[in-house]
Amino acid sequence: MDALDLVQNKKIHCLDHGFVELIDVMPRIVPDGQTCDYAICQMARTSYGQGTKSVNEDKGLINYLLRAAHTSPFESVEIKFHMKLPIFVARQMIRHRSSSLNEISARYSIMKDEFYLPEPEELRLQSATNKQGSDGAVNLEEAKTFSKIIKQISRDSYAWYENMINAGVSREQARMVLPVNLYTEWYWKQDLHNLMHLMALRCDSHAQYEIQVYGNAILEIVKQLCPWTIEAWEKYHPLRGAIKLTSLEKDAIKKCNNENGPRKISPIDSTNRREQNEWISKAQELGYEI
Amino acid sequence: MDALDLVQNKKIHCLDHGFVELIDVMPRIVPDGQTCDYAICQMARTSYGQGTKSVNEDKGLINYLLRAAHTSPFESVEIKFHMKLPIFVARQMIRHRSSSLNEISARYSIMKDEFYLPEPEELRLQSATNKQGSDGAVNLEEAKTFSKIIKQISRDSYAWYENMINAGVSREQARMVLPVNLYTEWYWKQDLHNLMHLMALRCDSHAQYEIQVYGNAILEIVKQLCPWTIEAWEKYHPLRGAIKLTSLEKDAIKKCNNENGPRKISPIDSTNRREQNEWISKAQELGYEI
Amino acid sequence: MDALDLVQNKKIHCLDHGFVELIDVMPRIVPDGQTCDYAICQMARTSYGQGTKSVNEDKGLINYLLRAAHTSPFESVEIKFHMKLPIFVARQMIRHRSSSLNEISARYSIMKDEFYLPEPEELRLQSATNKQGSDGAVNLEEAKTFSKIIKQISRDSYAWYENMINAGVSREQARMVLPVNLYTEWYWKQDLHNLMHLMALRCDSHAQYEIQVYGNAILEIVKQLCPWTIEAWEKYHPLRGAIKLTSLEKDAIKKCNNENGPRKISPIDSTNRREQNEWISKAQELGYEI
Amino acid sequence: MDALDLVQNKKIHCLDHGFVELIDVMPRIVPDGQTCDYAICQMARTSYGQGTKSVNEDKGLINYLLRAAHTSPFESVEIKFHMKLPIFVARQMIRHRSSSLNEISARYSIMKDEFYLPEPEELRLQSATNKQGSDGAVNLEEAKTFSKIIKQISRDSYAWYENMINAGVSREQARMVLPVNLYTEWYWKQDLHNLMHLMALRCDSHAQYEIQVYGNAILEIVKQLCPWTIEAWEKYHPLRGAIKLTSLEKDAIKKCNNENGPRKISPIDSTNRREQNEWISKAQELGYEI
Repeated sequence: MDALDLVQNKKIHCLDHGFVELIDVMPRIVPDGQTCDYAICQMARTSYGQGTKSVNEDKGLINYLLRAAHTSPFESVEIKFHMKLPIFVARQMIRHRSSSLNEISARYSIMKDEFYLPEPEELRLQSATNKQGSDGAVNLEEAKTFSKIIKQISRDSYAWYENMINAGVSREQARMVLPVNLYTEWYWKQDLHNLMHLMALRCDSHAQYEIQVYGNAILEIVKQLCPWTIEAWEKYHPLRGAIKLTSLEKDAIKKCNNENGPRKISPIDSTNRREQNEWISKAQELGYEI
Repeated sequence: MDALDLVQNKKIHCLDHGFVELIDVMPRIVPDGQTCDYAICQMARTSYGQGTKSVNEDKGLINYLLRAAHTSPFESVEIKFHMKLPIFVARQMIRHRSSSLNEISARYSIMKDEFYLPEPEELRLQSATNKQGSDGAVNLEEAKTFSKIIKQISRDSYAWYENMINAGVSREQARMVLPVNLYTEWYWKQDLHNLMHLMALRCDSHAQYEIQVYGNAILEIVKQLCPWTIEAWEKYHPLRGAIKLTSLEKDAIKKCNNENGPRKISPIDSTNRREQNEWISKAQELGYEI
Repeated sequence: MDALDLVQNKKIHCLDHGFVELIDVMPRIVPDGQTCDYAICQMARTSYGQGTKSVNEDKGLINYLLRAAHTSPFESVEIKFHMKLPIFVARQMIRHRSSSLNEISARYSIMKDEFYLPEPEELRLQSATNKQGSDGAVNLEEAKTFSKIIKQISRDSYAWYENMINAGVSREQARMVLPVNLYTEWYWKQDLHNLMHLMALRCDSHAQYEIQVYGNAILEIVKQLCPWTIEAWEKYHPLRGAIKLTSLEKDAIKKCNNENGPRKISPIDSTNRREQNEWISKAQELGYEI
Repeated sequence: MDALDLVQNKKIHCLDHGFVELIDVMPRIVPDGQTCDYAICQMARTSYGQGTKSVNEDKGLINYLLRAAHTSPFESVEIKFHMKLPIFVARQMIRHRSSSLNEISARYSIMKDEFYLPEPEELRLQSATNKQGSDGAVNLEEAKTFSKIIKQISRDSYAWYENMINAGVSREQARMVLPVNLYTEWYWKQDLHNLMHLMALRCDSHAQYEIQVYGNAILEIVKQLCPWTIEAWEKYHPLRGAIKLTSLEKDAIKKCNNENGPRKISPIDSTNRREQNEWISKAQELGYEI
């Protein structure tokens, strides 16, 4: 069965002209009724050789691997995307050094006249509390002006880029007037372990909105290819459904439970014995009775 | 000031014949009264350019970087060790692919007659509950036998290794009879970000005891070179003082707090405003009043 | 078309009990009549955007990419193998840090009684000229003794391993008596760029014979998956059909041709014996008298 | 002895406002009269254990390591730079994924009004033969116009950037109008093995002139820190003084020498024009008539 058929919508549009398109995946051929998750289990089971007979079924195994940070089996899945994205988004994404990529070369090719041009409603104010974030909409009148200006600068820059190209100026130099809202394109291949790290950071609400759009497009595709892995990741990653308590925060809970008399806490909503036991030991560490 | 002088004991003995020895560190020269932590702050502050004036002092910055998983500044510190360790420990450690290393070559050199030979008290039983762990001591009488056997096999193997070498057999082939408790040596250079990952896994109580010894020796050295980083790591890493609650576990606490009426929880023991606010939002997410 | 069908023999036996088996490849589905080479061209052409129209056909493109060291398109092909190999071979192979792998765990599983046991004819003498090589066969009488000894040590070690396991000693400790000719198993996934580097070093005549066997098995599979890439690699890689002349060697050829006397060529301007010998063999390969 | 004292000029100016500045090196403290090369030998000698006694002196060892592509000892040297460079140069450099870096954040900080503004004489024509290169100067009258235009676009973009910032638009969005000739800054740390790869590609005459300037600044610093390594690299790297002959080119030389007619050499057996041209220039470099 072709794993690409697991994905309804292989090309997800992003911002005004961009996209994330699924090109290929490893494993590409999966057993009927299964997903790319199966390659993760196949890889993990090698570690256990003959010992695998008693290992729980695949979904439980994937849950366990993610909880226990046994990350290498997730490297066995590779996903290849074609993306079109503004340069300033590409510059954030390329900080993830674990990918293999080929980008269109502005030395070799003439760049197309495609810029990310946000609508007035999409312009955001600088956050008052977070020096690297935005917060709330720009006053609409001003936003209309700025939106027009961004279009104008993009158009003018491109016109002069074209003029220089037509006059024979080298592409590698002419491109230097193009602003970072210009769209670029690349093929991007990365393994699932590293993709989960990228998505955790880039789908997060602290990431710049424009890269969240790409992060979420990637997530929408990946969760169709590897549904159990993404379900587990949503439950166990501290930037998703889970939470990380520092030792100081742990102390605050413990103190609260000691001072008021230990509170009786319920088991978690899971039938997995190992997961239940992990909770019991964490709850005891937090001062709960269970 | 030479950063090596921060470390009291540069060569820590491990197991019977092994060691971890600090060879070099980057930054090697640090301002008087400071430690290698300063290079992390220098690196981090670049990201903020002119904006750095209002950033808190160095210790708070390091705490923040670790809490927020801003990992790249920790890559600015490199530490180089000389280690002697049994092959089976070396095989676990080399799974950390981010290090640069040079190991003694058993094709080029004649290996020395040095084996890890545990005393009878050091032999551990297979854990009944953890298929990849050990638990409790082997019955002393049997342990004495096995300890003697391990010595015997090591001695016999080495004797035949030497015989083959003396008869002119190639080193690369003669070494194949040597068991994996043979000591090997290498230079190991790794950046601090990746070393923290290695230490988290290898100092953990689930790691094999023999590699914990090496993990703890590395930790003892690193905490003298980068005391603030290691203090923060002890507070914020889920395999150290911190704890990671899955979404199911979060739900159990929330439920407990809802059912019995929300419990009043204390602020954490920190004067850092950002850290206090992080706790407030986590505590609210867990159903506490604060 | 399923790319696995390009490979006649997916499981190649190596040494006495080992193997290299092709498990998966990316791209797995290739256009009819094509091979995995096509994904390399697809990746490379992105860099050229609209400029691709005039680019030569695929085979020429692959040749050019390899000659010009444009390596990133070759990262677009991923190959996954299952291997069984002696520990001392595995220890050489894992020095290639670019792979993703899962190895059977001797903490979790009981290792099988399988050792690499060379026949007497397979035992090689230490090279007199190359400190890390072997050269010629061991005298047959001695070789018979040593071959028997290797079997004996392996059998005895395994017997004691089994005894300890049966007495309840932890697997992670019991395994320490097992010699490095024990077979281990792993899944090994690597991209084609890094595989070419691995093959260049490990198929080379200076590599230990036992790892050459694995290098050549990998090569036999890869050349069926990516025939044009491997054809180009054979022509352009200095450890295959190509040759690298240092600046000194270049000068010597220039001098020869200037002086008009034809095929008598000078030694290079170096007092280093090894460097001179390298030149002598290269010059002879080029047809010069020296 | 402080290795930084080996370098005369620690801050090399690049283009109009950029620079490469040496910040730190590992090893920082080197024995008197030695250089950072010594750490490479120290690392290499580990591989040889007791066998080192007969190894030649350090310079010969470094030459050998580079000729034989024993690359890991060169990873033992780490060099940290502070750089200011235009975004389009930064985008080329960051393709080298082996570095650790921290870049100024345009989400956090307000970017400075600093752009790379080439003088009219510095504007180059598109190469007629190399689709990704430049060749010759732009006609001076036109160049004056374009140089003025580049200044104008940069100034206008920055003015609108400032306006948006002053109106409270988030920095992360306002920056999108800034063209890629804007200067950015980063700390860049990389090991010597990977730096040699970067320099080979980026100091090469096929690289864009603007990145060659940075490549050469790095080279000027590195050759003072590790003089023997760089001397060897200049002799043995095919993109520096050495040359790589493909198997076809080798065959042509052999044929010439067999036929006894001396310096008249045949074209290679290929119908690919580019490949023929590469051979013509190599053969001429070797002193042959063709």
